Amino acid sequence: MTTVGILGGGQLARMMALAGAPLGLRFLVMDNVADACAGQFAPMVVGDYTDEAALAEFASRVDVATFDFENVPAESAQWLTNRVPVFPKPRALATAQDRLAEKTLFRELDIPVPPFASIDTREQLDAAVAQIGTPCILKTRRLGYDGKGQFRIKTPADASAAWEALGAQAGKVGLILEGFVAFQRELSVVAVRARDGEFRAWPLTENWHVDGVLSASLAPATVDDAMAATAIGYARKLAEALDYVGVFALELFCRDGELLANELAPRVHNSGHWTIEGSETSQFQNHLRAVLGLPLGDTRMVGTACMLNWIGAMPEATAVLAESGGHWHDYGKQPREGRKVGHATLRADSATELAAALVRVGEALGREAQVMPVVLALRP
Amino acid sequence: MTTVGILGGGQLARMMALAGAPLGLRFLVMDNVADACAGQFAPMVVGDYTDEAALAEFASRVDVATFDFENVPAESAQWLTNRVPVFPKPRALATAQDRLAEKTLFRELDIPVPPFASIDTREQLDAAVAQIGTPCILKTRRLGYDGKGQFRIKTPADASAAWEALGAQAGKVGLILEGFVAFQRELSVVAVRARDGEFRAWPLTENWHVDGVLSASLAPATVDDAMAATAIGYARKLAEALDYVGVFALELFCRDGELLANELAPRVHNSGHWTIEGSETSQFQNHLRAVLGLPLGDTRMVGTACMLNWIGAMPEATAVLAESGGHWHDYGKQPREGRKVGHATLRADSATELAAALVRVGEALGREAQVMPVVLALRP
Ligand SMILES: Nc1ncnc2c1ncn2[C@@H]1O[C@H](COP(=O)(O)OP(=O)(O)OP(=O)(O)O)[C@@H](O)[C@H]1O
Ligand SMILES: Nc1ncnc2c1ncn2[C@@H]1O[C@H](COP(=O)(O)OP(=O)(O)OP(=O)(O)O)[C@@H](O)[C@H]1O
Repeated sequence: MTTVGILGGGQLARMMALAGAPLGLRFLVMDNVADACAGQFAPMVVGDYTDEAALAEFASRVDVATFDFENVPAESAQWLTNRVPVFPKPRALATAQDRLAEKTLFRELDIPVPPFASIDTREQLDAAVAQIGTPCILKTRRLGYDGKGQFRIKTPADASAAWEALGAQAGKVGLILEGFVAFQRELSVVAVRARDGEFRAWPLTENWHVDGVLSASLAPATVDDAMAATAIGYARKLAEALDYVGVFALELFCRDGELLANELAPRVHNSGHWTIEGSETSQFQNHLRAVLGLPLGDTRMVGTACMLNWIGAMPEATAVLAESGGHWHDYGKQPREGRKVGHATLRADSATELAAALVRVGEALGREAQVMPVVLALRP
Repeated sequence: MTTVGILGGGQLARMMALAGAPLGLRFLVMDNVADACAGQFAPMVVGDYTDEAALAEFASRVDVATFDFENVPAESAQWLTNRVPVFPKPRALATAQDRLAEKTLFRELDIPVPPFASIDTREQLDAAVAQIGTPCILKTRRLGYDGKGQFRIKTPADASAAWEALGAQAGKVGLILEGFVAFQRELSVVAVRARDGEFRAWPLTENWHVDGVLSASLAPATVDDAMAATAIGYARKLAEALDYVGVFALELFCRDGELLANELAPRVHNSGHWTIEGSETSQFQNHLRAVLGLPLGDTRMVGTACMLNWIGAMPEATAVLAESGGHWHDYGKQPREGRKVGHATLRADSATELAAALVRVGEALGREAQVMPVVLALRP
């Protein structure tokens, strides 16, 4: 009997536990809040990720540890490695936690990136804005998620406001300035690498964000094979450079046929939720297979799939449940503004059917704006 | 937040909880043993199904109740209905629990059955053996499962041994004598009926038993459309007669092109486990949708699928996990002779691919005999 420990008890841990149960696994989740939604289906240790007593208890009860949450302090992850195997390895986690380290690695690996500069002072910000040009984005190096910790600089005059908003972070989590990419589309590679180095990627996913938060994902992305191969090649290079074990996502911008890497998420990823129904093996089960040294599952698609995120509160389920390929995912969370509380996946055998289902669901839920960009992307 | 109570905490309850989590449901399982495998993923009440205090606690913590175990005393189910809605309704459960009531209903509904007779005494047994002819089978009316509580009578002289083995049950759970059916194949209809009467069936399943226990299932069964329609028609008639709500299985023998009903299982059924990966909606999720009054999910197949049961102990997982369409289900149980501890489902896009995968898995696990009949059935 193998027990998998998961640091972080949100929806990713929850879906991982549900996907791992058929493998005969048990789970233990650690989170700093007692009502974390994974706790509805797995036992929990409640404690801060820096609390050594809690970490020690967690470690003593698991055979291997992984993450649902990428901002677990790298030192805590490192500390755990003395007690249990931890995947992905803390070094990979540390790189992915730091936008500067991450982008520096992308560049070293010849993976194209938007221009960027490390920012420690107000003077450096002005100089970098002048050099990179506007528009650009000031971001915290660490602890950002769902577009939080970001400030858009449209003209050089915005630098003051940006510094006002984020300058205090320069000495704490660090800052980075990035050129703004006027992309036509956003893509992600969701991929998995095994302990023995085997690498598999799911078909490319196309993503739409609203206010910095993922709103919809479509797989396969409507890009040509060459671009998909390039994107997957970048993901593979990265995984190998980091000796990565488990599932990760590489987020990319596509501008005028060119791919630019945005960030690496060192965990199962929201843009891979469609794999639960849309692929032979879900990202959640493949992550566990990788972490445990089991054979990886097939990442081929079963039809075509679109995921719609539910933010803040769950809509009425009926319209989705009534669709032939409609699948509902309620994370069992309390509603709260901006919170990811669930998603739906629509699966179909063809793009035409998928578009029709999206139109029906969009209308029924009054969410035409959410489904529209996907429907347009599906047009032949 | 809706909590579903499940009487019985075995693998069926476990898979139901895993399938219901995405609907945002919580579960409470009641079982008379504390280490019931559903308890790994859901909170439990431990108590006997006839213990009113335990039942009362269970009832007070759930919004609706259902079963993983068909032999919950019908009186306990009835008692619960005064506190919470119970589906399927205790009357349907009572009928399905009693082979005599069940077969009598089949006959009333013009669903063909093997000849049968109720047996209370040794004299009745002799008379019935003479009338029905040999071979025939003496079975307990209630509490049988996996071929337990059965005695095969090959010649009239075996009646003594049969009475010796089961006669003491005549005054307890009752006995029934059934004509032995020299069937060519066994089939099952797994179907679901909603609270509002909507009825849906999955494609017909073909089953192979070894020593009275299910060994393998194949879907869709290799029968013609007319036979499938007849079988599904029987299931529908039955469900309507019983005002059944939830998933059930109707087991049928097929002899010389004729269908004979064997039994009704008033719950999700082992021959429907393939629906987890092989159908757009699994039997587990559709059971919950029915019980909760949600729209039923599509029962169409996604490819073709074969389920292999693991009895006694789990084999090595690797050979199945290495198959492109290989899915593993370890119920997290202790090994024990004759115990259903897990299953595997192989899914493929064509019968030819499925047969090839079965041959590979059979060889790798030294289970050629288990896969062989399925491989033969898949031959064009
Ligand atoms: N340099 C950029 N150019 C244009 N748009 C950007 C840029 N950086 C971020 N964005 C937009 O903001 C979104 C969120 O940014 P980013 O991925 O950096 O944030 P995050 O907080 O790490 O979010 P998550 O991890 O949830 O994707 C991007 O998906 C994109 O839509
Ligand atoms: N009348 C019969 N003629 C021929 N074979 C029979 C007959 N009754 C039972 N069998 C064989 O025994 C198997 C189990 O019988 P039955 O379904 O009555 O048992 P059970 O204990 O209710 O099992 P389960 O509910 O697990 O199917 C059948 O699937 C069939 O293979």
